[in-house]
Amino acid sequence: MRAQEVIQRKRDGRPVPPDALAELVAGYTSGAIPDYQMAAFCMAVFFRGMGEEELSALTRAMLESGQVLDLSAIPGPKVDKHSTGGVGDKVSLALAPLAAACGVKVPMVSGRGLGHTGGTLDKLEAIPGFQVDLPVERFRELVASVGACLIGQTSSIAPADRKLYALRDVTATVESIPLIAASIMSKKMAEGIDALVLDVKTGGGAFMKTRDDARRLGQTLAGIGRAMGKRVTALVTAMEEPLGHAVGNALEVAEAVDLLRGGGPPDLHEITVELTAEMLLLAGLARGAEGARRRVEEALDDGSGLRKLRQIVEAQGGDARAIDDLDRLPRAEGVLEVRSDRAGVVQAVDAEQIGLAAMALGAGRARVEDRIDPAVGVMVLKKVGDRVESGEPLCSLHHGSQGAEPAPRVAERVLAAYRIGETLPPLGPLVLERIA
Amino acid sequence: MRAQEVIQRKRDGRPVPPDALAELVAGYTSGAIPDYQMAAFCMAVFFRGMGEEELSALTRAMLESGQVLDLSAIPGPKVDKHSTGGVGDKVSLALAPLAAACGVKVPMVSGRGLGHTGGTLDKLEAIPGFQVDLPVERFRELVASVGACLIGQTSSIAPADRKLYALRDVTATVESIPLIAASIMSKKMAEGIDALVLDVKTGGGAFMKTRDDARRLGQTLAGIGRAMGKRVTALVTAMEEPLGHAVGNALEVAEAVDLLRGGGPPDLHEITVELTAEMLLLAGLARGAEGARRRVEEALDDGSGLRKLRQIVEAQGGDARAIDDLDRLPRAEGVLEVRSDRAGVVQAVDAEQIGLAAMALGAGRARVEDRIDPAVGVMVLKKVGDRVESGEPLCSLHHGSQGAEPAPRVAERVLAAYRIGETLPPLGPLVLERIA
Repeated sequence: MRAQEVIQRKRDGRPVPPDALAELVAGYTSGAIPDYQMAAFCMAVFFRGMGEEELSALTRAMLESGQVLDLSAIPGPKVDKHSTGGVGDKVSLALAPLAAACGVKVPMVSGRGLGHTGGTLDKLEAIPGFQVDLPVERFRELVASVGACLIGQTSSIAPADRKLYALRDVTATVESIPLIAASIMSKKMAEGIDALVLDVKTGGGAFMKTRDDARRLGQTLAGIGRAMGKRVTALVTAMEEPLGHAVGNALEVAEAVDLLRGGGPPDLHEITVELTAEMLLLAGLARGAEGARRRVEEALDDGSGLRKLRQIVEAQGGDARAIDDLDRLPRAEGVLEVRSDRAGVVQAVDAEQIGLAAMALGAGRARVEDRIDPAVGVMVLKKVGDRVESGEPLCSLHHGSQGAEPAPRVAERVLAAYRIGETLPPLGPLVLERIA
Repeated sequence: MRAQEVIQRKRDGRPVPPDALAELVAGYTSGAIPDYQMAAFCMAVFFRGMGEEELSALTRAMLESGQVLDLSAIPGPKVDKHSTGGVGDKVSLALAPLAAACGVKVPMVSGRGLGHTGGTLDKLEAIPGFQVDLPVERFRELVASVGACLIGQTSSIAPADRKLYALRDVTATVESIPLIAASIMSKKMAEGIDALVLDVKTGGGAFMKTRDDARRLGQTLAGIGRAMGKRVTALVTAMEEPLGHAVGNALEVAEAVDLLRGGGPPDLHEITVELTAEMLLLAGLARGAEGARRRVEEALDDGSGLRKLRQIVEAQGGDARAIDDLDRLPRAEGVLEVRSDRAGVVQAVDAEQIGLAAMALGAGRARVEDRIDPAVGVMVLKKVGDRVESGEPLCSLHHGSQGAEPAPRVAERVLAAYRIGETLPPLGPLVLERIA
C-alpha cells in the first residue's frame, strides 16, 4: 500500500493493515518515506487514534527498526519499570536495587530529563564516575551478575522511534496516546524483558493532565504489552505536588539513598514499595500484593537494597563511597531559602512550576543540547497538608552561578507555586488505579 | 508564532491569527518552513476546518505569494467563471465568447485535466495552433481588445498554491473544503477580476460527491470572495451523467461550437446559459435573471457568440477555419460503437466511469507528465431517460493506437457505466442551488 493510501485510510477512520504499518515504519526509517508523509500520518492518528491490532503492529515495526536485546541466557525473570515522567521522581534509583535484592533481574534503559521533568540518567550521573553508556555486552553481564544495570538508550535501539519523536516534536503530534504508547513500548520491548511495570503519572506535574487520559494511556500500554506476549501492570499515580522533597539530580540521589536506609519521605516510600512489589508479582517472586509489599519492606529494613545500590554503583564505575557519605555528591554553591509570606496550611504545590524552577536553576534542560548542573535544585520543605508560619521556609533553592535565571527570580516562581489556606485540604491517595 | 504553535492551535480547534497564517504561507513558500510542518497543518485543517477570518487570511497569503494582475486600466467589469471539474464540461469554451459578446471582460486562467475530469487548456489546444501560454502583457491586451482571453496558470501566479497542492496530493489532504476553497480563490483572485461565478459540481462524476459538501464548498468560496471584497455567485449543479454528449478534447470543442451555432445538447445549453447569465448579472449588464438569460440567448441566436469565439481563436494563434469546418479538428483513427445488450430506458450513466474510459483512450492524464491525444474520447449517444433497443449504440469510442487500454477493453468499462431499466427514471434539475 502506498504511503498516501495508508494516510488516507487512517484519516478516514478505516483500520490500516499490519503489513502496511510495517512498510510505513521501515520506509520511514530508511528514508524512502519522507517526513511530510509521516507528519500527516501522525496528525491523522492524533485525531483518529489506533486500534489494538494497528498499535501492536506499529510498535513491533518500531521495535524491529533496531536491535532487540536477547537476555534469555540469563536465568530468572527480567522485569523493568517505566515512568511517564514526574517532578522529583527518583523512584528508579531505589526500586532497581530493591527489586534486584529481591531476586528480580532488572535491565533498565532510561532517558534524560527534558522540560520540567527529570531523567534517571542525569540523576545517576550526579554520582561521581557513574557510567551510563555501557556496551550491550557489559549491560548483559551486569544484569546477570549484579542483578540490575541502568544505562541510556543506545543509537541501535528503536531508531524509528528516535526519528519519529523528533518529527512529532516539531509537528504538534506529541500529545497522542497511541503514539506515546508505541514510543514507550518499542523502547521497552527492545530490552529483552519478560514483564514491565508502568507508572503512569497524572495531574498538574505530569504529561497526562487528566486521570481519564492517564487511564487510557495505561490501558493502551498494557494492551500493547499483552499483544506482544509480555506481562504488563500499570499503576496510575498522582503527580500534583513533587514526589518527596528533592527536585534536582544530586539532591534526589541523596533522598533515594535516605529511603534505602529506611528513611525518606512517606510518599516516595509508598510509591517505591508499590511499584517494586508489582515487579515481584510479575516476576512470580511473591504471592499476593501483601506478600510482595512485605518482601520489599524487608529489603529496606535489612539493608539489602542499599547494599545492592552500592554494588550497582561500583559495577558501573561510580564512587560507591558517595552512597555512604552523601557529602561526596556534588554540592551547590549557595542555598537560598524561600519563606512563606503568610501563616496557614499548604493547599497545593504546583509540581510543574517547581520542576520549571529547578530547570531554571540548571537542574534540567529546556533544549536537548543544554548542559545541566548536577548539584542544583529545589528542596520542597513544606508539602500539601503541612502547617506553615509566616516567615518559615517553604523551599530551599540549591543554586550555582550558571543557571538560566538568578536564584531570587526563581524564588518568586517557587513562592507562586504554593497555595496556602486556612483549612486542611483533602488528601487523596497516591496510587489512583491499577491496570493489569 | 512558531510553526509548531500554529499547528497546535489548529489541532486543538483554536483560531489561528491572520498574521500567523500569513507568516506560515510566506515561510513555506520561501522554504523556511519545511514540508513536514505544512503537512501536519493541512491534516489538522482537514479535521478542524477553518473560520471565515482564517480562510481569507490563508487565501490572501497564498494570493500574495505571487503576481497579482492589475486589470484596472481596462474599462468595464472583469468577470471570470470557475468550475470545480466535471466530465464533458466544455462550458468555458462557449461561455467565455458569449459573455464577451455581451460586453463582459473575461480574463480566464484555466487548468489542465487530471484524473477523470478534463481541463479547458487541453480542450483549447485541440484547436490547431491555439496558444495558451501567452505573456501577461498580451493577456491584458486581448482582454481589453477582444474581450476574452483564455490562458494557463503561469508560474508567477500563487506559487504557494502550486507547492501546497503538490504536498496535499501525497499527504491525503486534498479533500478538505477550506483548502480546496483557498486554492481556487487564491488563483482566481490573482486574475485581477471584479467578480466570479462558480460552478460547483456535485454527484458521482464530481469531486464533491454529496450535495451537502458541494453546498459547503460553494458557501466557503462565496465567503472568501466576500471577505476579499469581490462579488461571487456559486451555482451547485448536477454531475451524475456526463454533460452533453462529448467527452474528449476535439469532440468537446466541436460540441461547444455546435452550441454557439444554436444547437448542442439541452443540458449543456441550459448550464451554459445559466452560468453566463450569472456573469452578466455580476457585471451589472442585465437586470434580473430573466433579462440576463434573454441577453445570452440573443448572443446565441444572432451568432455574436460564435463570431467572438472565432476572434479569440485567431487572437491566440489558432486556426479559426476549424471553427467553421469542424473536420479540421484532430480526428481519431477509428470509431468503435458500444452497443446495448438489452432494450429499456437508461437509468444512469456513471460520469466518473465515462471520464476514466476517455482517459484510458488517451484523452486525459493519470499523472501530470502524461501526454494526451486531442482526437480521442467518448461520444455519449444515449443519456439518462433515453429509450434504447437491444443492439443499438450507447456510445461511440473515438480511439487511436496509443491509449493506455485497447478500445474493446474500454468498451466493457463504458457498458458497465450504464444502468438500463424498465421505467422512466426521475429527472432532477441541473441547477440545484444558487449561493450568492
